Amino acid sequence: MRAHEAGAVHADAGSPSALLMSAPSDVNRLAPGVWPLGAQRDGATGVVTLAGHDVRDLAHEFGTPAYLLDEDDFRGRIRAWRSAFEQATGAEADVYYAGKSFLCTTVVSWLAHEGVNLDVCTGGELAVAVRAGFDMHRVLMHGNNKSVAELREAVERGVGLVVVDSFEEIVRLAHIAEELGTTQPVLIRVTVGVEAHTHEFIATAHEDQKFGFSLTGGQALEAVRRVQKHSSLDLRGLHSHIGSQIFSTEGFEVAAHRLVDFMGQVRDEIGSEVSLLDLGGGLGIAYTEHDDPQEPRAIAEQLAAIVSRECHARGLAMPRLAVEPGRAIAGPPTMTVYEVGTIKPVDVGQGLTRTYVSVDGGMSDNIRTPLYDASYTCALVSRASTAEPMLVRVVGKHCESGDVVVKDAWLPADLAPGDLLAVAATGAYGRSMASNYNHVPRPPVVAVTSEGARVIVRRETIDDLLALDIE
Amino acid sequence: MRAHEAGAVHADAGSPSALLMSAPSDVNRLAPGVWPLGAQRDGATGVVTLAGHDVRDLAHEFGTPAYLLDEDDFRGRIRAWRSAFEQATGAEADVYYAGKSFLCTTVVSWLAHEGVNLDVCTGGELAVAVRAGFDMHRVLMHGNNKSVAELREAVERGVGLVVVDSFEEIVRLAHIAEELGTTQPVLIRVTVGVEAHTHEFIATAHEDQKFGFSLTGGQALEAVRRVQKHSSLDLRGLHSHIGSQIFSTEGFEVAAHRLVDFMGQVRDEIGSEVSLLDLGGGLGIAYTEHDDPQEPRAIAEQLAAIVSRECHARGLAMPRLAVEPGRAIAGPPTMTVYEVGTIKPVDVGQGLTRTYVSVDGGMSDNIRTPLYDASYTCALVSRASTAEPMLVRVVGKHCESGDVVVKDAWLPADLAPGDLLAVAATGAYGRSMASNYNHVPRPPVVAVTSEGARVIVRRETIDDLLALDIE
Repeated sequence: MRAHEAGAVHADAGSPSALLMSAPSDVNRLAPGVWPLGAQRDGATGVVTLAGHDVRDLAHEFGTPAYLLDEDDFRGRIRAWRSAFEQATGAEADVYYAGKSFLCTTVVSWLAHEGVNLDVCTGGELAVAVRAGFDMHRVLMHGNNKSVAELREAVERGVGLVVVDSFEEIVRLAHIAEELGTTQPVLIRVTVGVEAHTHEFIATAHEDQKFGFSLTGGQALEAVRRVQKHSSLDLRGLHSHIGSQIFSTEGFEVAAHRLVDFMGQVRDEIGSEVSLLDLGGGLGIAYTEHDDPQEPRAIAEQLAAIVSRECHARGLAMPRLAVEPGRAIAGPPTMTVYEVGTIKPVDVGQGLTRTYVSVDGGMSDNIRTPLYDASYTCALVSRASTAEPMLVRVVGKHCESGDVVVKDAWLPADLAPGDLLAVAATGAYGRSMASNYNHVPRPPVVAVTSEGARVIVRRETIDDLLALDIE
Repeated sequence: MRAHEAGAVHADAGSPSALLMSAPSDVNRLAPGVWPLGAQRDGATGVVTLAGHDVRDLAHEFGTPAYLLDEDDFRGRIRAWRSAFEQATGAEADVYYAGKSFLCTTVVSWLAHEGVNLDVCTGGELAVAVRAGFDMHRVLMHGNNKSVAELREAVERGVGLVVVDSFEEIVRLAHIAEELGTTQPVLIRVTVGVEAHTHEFIATAHEDQKFGFSLTGGQALEAVRRVQKHSSLDLRGLHSHIGSQIFSTEGFEVAAHRLVDFMGQVRDEIGSEVSLLDLGGGLGIAYTEHDDPQEPRAIAEQLAAIVSRECHARGLAMPRLAVEPGRAIAGPPTMTVYEVGTIKPVDVGQGLTRTYVSVDGGMSDNIRTPLYDASYTCALVSRASTAEPMLVRVVGKHCESGDVVVKDAWLPADLAPGDLLAVAATGAYGRSMASNYNHVPRPPVVAVTSEGARVIVRRETIDDLLALDIE
């Protein structure tokens, strides 16, 4: 379904394919791999618990909608990525958590505690790390258009790596480092002509995007030359990012082939080998049962093997590997809990009915459904039900027809206003891309462990919003 | 182009059709009808001014990016809609400004001063009106899933009209009004099976959307019956909204035909005629020169004529007409000013080059391009240029390939970092749907008149963002 201000998209009206999706045999089942590890349906009460806490109690204490984050799951994923790469590469792992997926000071403190680095793309994300007292050497800064102020702050604070992204930036960064009397370690962002997504990838000679230096036409090699001209810049390695929500390493294989080939060119050009190869992020998660992401260990082993093979073939030393999981850490441990407000069966033609279930949030707390036509899984969590499954569309409360939360979902036919619904895997790009559309305050993020639950990002208030109005 | 986290959309890479768009004869020309009325390029300096103020001075004073709002244009549009409907209907005009497009306390004070009503859809939007001291009788409240708290506040504050949207809501609202010992005037939202957009519309028997009561299967008539059962609800009329960014009244004609037909049924059912017909919003504006919206007066005359004809044919008295322009008032008077940061020619294959121009904002201050595949017009505003036009893609600074501000634009080939670019017609759904993605603070809205410029919504700070983090 294509988001459209005008309302439901023409071709989508009454779509029988969606309406005829096969019903699940058990509407109470929480699909494995999709929900936070600590989420389960209590056998006795039928209520879903998170880390042992009844979601009704959490909803009562923190209000709805709320992002409920399974802290053990989140931190376990940080550790899993770190150890997977440590084991696969036999070296200290260069795992950079992609802060853009979800960032707050508490998350930064978890990264510090679990020994993982941080990837930021703006001064704002850097400020969160600074506020949390994070070691700046463990920060890598991305961005196709970092401002001079952002670059200066990065250098002043001693950010570990700046990923240079344009010829303009090489000059800007070099001048800033020179002025500050320091040497800034950098990576060069290389676009390799590989675009990967889920189970497919395309490989071309070119790349039509704003990031990086293309291998085509020698831009990447020219970037190496220009970085080398500046003694205030220290070329540490190369960066490549090939896509998002990727389930297979095939695209990485093609990218690594080209990157390592380029590493050989760089060695020939500058007389030494770069020591770091950052393969970026983009590792997929399960939004629905149809998604089958690999475990960190399998991914780490495959990536290490691919790079090792390519380097061996060209007589290059194996570089340190870096990766940037964001969604793969932040996504699965969080679910959004909403309260059902209205339930409306709508005749959509051809003798079919679509049941619209309205919840108390929507596109302001999760823009991914309308923005990317994203799929999600949802469930009734405040009770179990013995009713038959019914096919519904979960929608938000915003004044826009495109305000869809879950396009097609099976929920029990006795669903009623006041029931709590949860949407799984909303931790990445949920709160981080949230808006105040319709002056809806953004929900809190609540970290839940068996010990208790605490707010790590508080709910906005109407007063927060009005504080920006100047009369 | 379809927004996609994975980056450029496959089929879009190197799209020759876009790259071969015909170049404008004068790259300095501000397309008429697209820019704020007070925006012009100074003949002597070549700089664009807004209400007489050099945009370089405004950018210097308020920073970039910034939403620059031409106050006279904005207020003139409020007056134009009011007087168009007053003249066309010979009655006091029921023009409701759709607050969702852009709302702050200053805008509310303009509505009050210019004698126009306000349409809100949430408690948050209502709070802005309350803060501004707006007459609550002039407020209409929409929403497919208003909370009980929102309904209660609306009734307590004496909101003029609540548009009821579901059977659940009829009961909730009736009970609240009863409990508070008052009678709440309501409209019933009717879905008529017409979906309009730009120059096209479709008409079906059904409607696949979350809003309202369908005429099909008698839901709308059943809603009338249920409202009538409650003495605490006072049925004033019907509401219909058929789409957005509409340039022709043909869709309204079909909708009015069905609505007035239904008004006849309502009269037969309840023995009296409803007095108000709210035709909703959705009136289009020019984002590019290819868009040709009609003037308010033409629209008002056509709508009044259509409804009058339909009522006459059925022996019904002409009802009061209400309309809800939001975009048509808020959109055109505002332009967003950005500073250019990097300029990158990218080989996109087939011997073609796309020049990526990165600015210091992006999808956080304007989500419409990636969300709706929206088109915009942009121009170099800090100077004129004698260089040839080049075809560019204006992109933001966010860490996402889909972060496109203007998909295809012609800008002078001597464009350079530090130049100021403005994007026209960003007033509606720009600031209102803005996010803090990548922890980017939202830009200010600056109201500009010949007298001076003042901030009406201030720029967020990093501290504002961090204030929500609980450690």
